[in-house]
Amino acid sequence: MSQYILEEIMHTILKSNSKTVTIGHDKPFVIIGEKINPTGIKKLGQALVDQNFEYVQQLAKRQVAWGADVLDVNVGHPQIDEAAIMPKVVQAILEVADVPLCIDSNEPKILEAGLKVTPGKPLVNSVNGEDKQLRTVLPIVKERGAAVIGMAIGNDGIPPTAEGRLAAAGKIIEYAAKMGIPAEDIVIDPLVMTVGHNSVAGLVTLKAIELITKEYGVNISLGASNVSFGLPDRHAVNSAFLALAIQAGVTTSITDPIKLGNSIKAIDLLLGKDANSMRYLKYFRAAEKLRAEEGK
Amino acid sequence: MSQYILEEIMHTILKSNSKTVTIGHDKPFVIIGEKINPTGIKKLGQALVDQNFEYVQQLAKRQVAWGADVLDVNVGHPQIDEAAIMPKVVQAILEVADVPLCIDSNEPKILEAGLKVTPGKPLVNSVNGEDKQLRTVLPIVKERGAAVIGMAIGNDGIPPTAEGRLAAAGKIIEYAAKMGIPAEDIVIDPLVMTVGHNSVAGLVTLKAIELITKEYGVNISLGASNVSFGLPDRHAVNSAFLALAIQAGVTTSITDPIKLGNSIKAIDLLLGKDANSMRYLKYFRAAEKLRAEEGK
Repeated sequence: MSQYILEEIMHTILKSNSKTVTIGHDKPFVIIGEKINPTGIKKLGQALVDQNFEYVQQLAKRQVAWGADVLDVNVGHPQIDEAAIMPKVVQAILEVADVPLCIDSNEPKILEAGLKVTPGKPLVNSVNGEDKQLRTVLPIVKERGAAVIGMAIGNDGIPPTAEGRLAAAGKIIEYAAKMGIPAEDIVIDPLVMTVGHNSVAGLVTLKAIELITKEYGVNISLGASNVSFGLPDRHAVNSAFLALAIQAGVTTSITDPIKLGNSIKAIDLLLGKDANSMRYLKYFRAAEKLRAEEGK
Repeated sequence: MSQYILEEIMHTILKSNSKTVTIGHDKPFVIIGEKINPTGIKKLGQALVDQNFEYVQQLAKRQVAWGADVLDVNVGHPQIDEAAIMPKVVQAILEVADVPLCIDSNEPKILEAGLKVTPGKPLVNSVNGEDKQLRTVLPIVKERGAAVIGMAIGNDGIPPTAEGRLAAAGKIIEYAAKMGIPAEDIVIDPLVMTVGHNSVAGLVTLKAIELITKEYGVNISLGASNVSFGLPDRHAVNSAFLALAIQAGVTTSITDPIKLGNSIKAIDLLLGKDANSMRYLKYFRAAEKLRAEEGK
C-alpha cells in the first residue's frame, strides 16, 4: 500500500547556530521544552506585554539546564502584537541558548515572523490535516526549509479512532510530499485525549502511534500531559504514558524537562539507548545540583 | 511450531478461602505483595526467630490495605527451622488477610509444609528449568493443584539472550504439561538483570516477554526492582520498566504495592483496563487515607 517502506531509520534533523539535534527511533528521546508559552504562566504573559525579555531568557536557560534539547516558542497572548513580538522573543532566546527552536503559532504570519530570524533548521508547531491549514502553513515550512509537526486532525476534527488518525497523518505527509517536503521533515502528533473521560483514550493513541510508525516510519511527537487531565497524582499517569508511548514509537515530546526528565532518561536507559547509564547518571547529577541551587 | 496457539486468553486462577484472583492479559494487573520476606527486613527476621507473628500480621494487613491482591510468604532465615515456621506464618496470615497466598521457598520440604495449611488455590514461588528442580518441585505443585512461577533459568544458569529464556520457559511448560499441569497454571518469570551493568538488560527481558507471550500465551511475572540496582532515583527506573514490561506482556509482579501501586493503577488505566478510572481513583483515595493514618 505505501511507498514509504521503512528501509532505513528516518532522522529529523534540527539545527541551531552550532548544534544539531537528531530525532529518530534509534536515538535518545528528544525533549522540546514547553515553558516559553504564556498559556498558564501569567508572569510570562505580563513580561511579553511589558517587552521584558529577561524573564524569557531565564526560562530558556533553566529549561536547557534541565535537559531541553529544543525550545518551543509561543507568544500567544491577547494583549500583544504577536507577529511583532515573536522575532524579539526569538532573538532574546538566541542570546542565551544555543539549541534549535520550535516556532509555535496557529497563524502563518506569526510563524513567518519567527522563522525569519531563527538560524539553522527550526521546527514549526504546527500544521494539521485541514485543507486550509495545509495550504497556508506548508508553503512557509517549504520556503524556510524547516521541519514541521503535523497534528493528526482532519477536516472533521480529531478522529476518534486510530485508523482515522493514521489517515489524517497520511494526508499531511502526502500533501507535503507533493510540495517537495520530505517525510523526514514531518513529525506527526497522534494526539491524546483525557483518559479520565474515556477509558480507551490511551489505547487509541498507542495504536495510532504504532500504525503511523509502521506505515510511514516518521518521527512521532506527543504532548503527554493531556492524558491525565482531571485526575489526581497526574505525574504517575504522565510518566507511565510516556513509557508506553515511547515503546510504541514516540521519539520526541513538547514537555517540561523539570517534571519528566528523569522518567525520559530512565526509559532511554531501559530501551538500550544509554551505554553505561552515562546520560541517566549525568542527568541525575545535574538535576541534583540544580535542585540545590534552586533551593528545593 | 507450537501446540499452544493462543485461541483464548489464558487465565491463572488463584483462590483464598473466599476470594478468587484472576491473572490474565485482559485483566487488571495483579500485585503480589513482597514484604513477608525477612531478606532485608531485619525486624521480620527477629520476629520469626521469636515466633512473634503479630508483626507478620501487621505486614500482611498493611500490604492488603495498600492494594496487594496476593501475598508472597517467605521465611528464609538461617536461625529458624523453616519447615516448622512456614505453616505457623501461613496460619497467622490467614487470621488477618483473606487473599490467595504465594508460598515462597527453594526447598521442596518447606513448600510442602506451607501448601499443606494454605486453603484455596495457592501459587508456588518457584521452580526453574534445572532438571533437578523440575523433578522435585513440580510433583508438589501437581499434588496440591497449585499454580507455579517458573523462572527462565536452564541447567547453565540465566540465559543471556531472549531466545535462551524462551527455551528455558518452554522447557518448564513442556515438562509440566507431561505431568498434567496445564499451561494456565504456569506463570513465567523471564528475569531481569541490572541495567546499570548491562545496557541491553532491559531490552533482553522485554524481548523475552514478547517471545514467551507469543509462543505460549502464559501469564508472566516480573520482579521489577532488580533492573535499577546500583542506580540513583531507582523509582523512576522501576516505574518506567514496569510500564514497558506490562505493555510487552507482564501480567503480575511480586512487588511493593506501597511503592509501585500508583504506577500500576495508572498503567491499567492507560491500557483501557479501568472503566471510568474507578480503580485508579479508589487506589488514590485509599493511599491518601493510609498516608494520613501512617503519619507520612
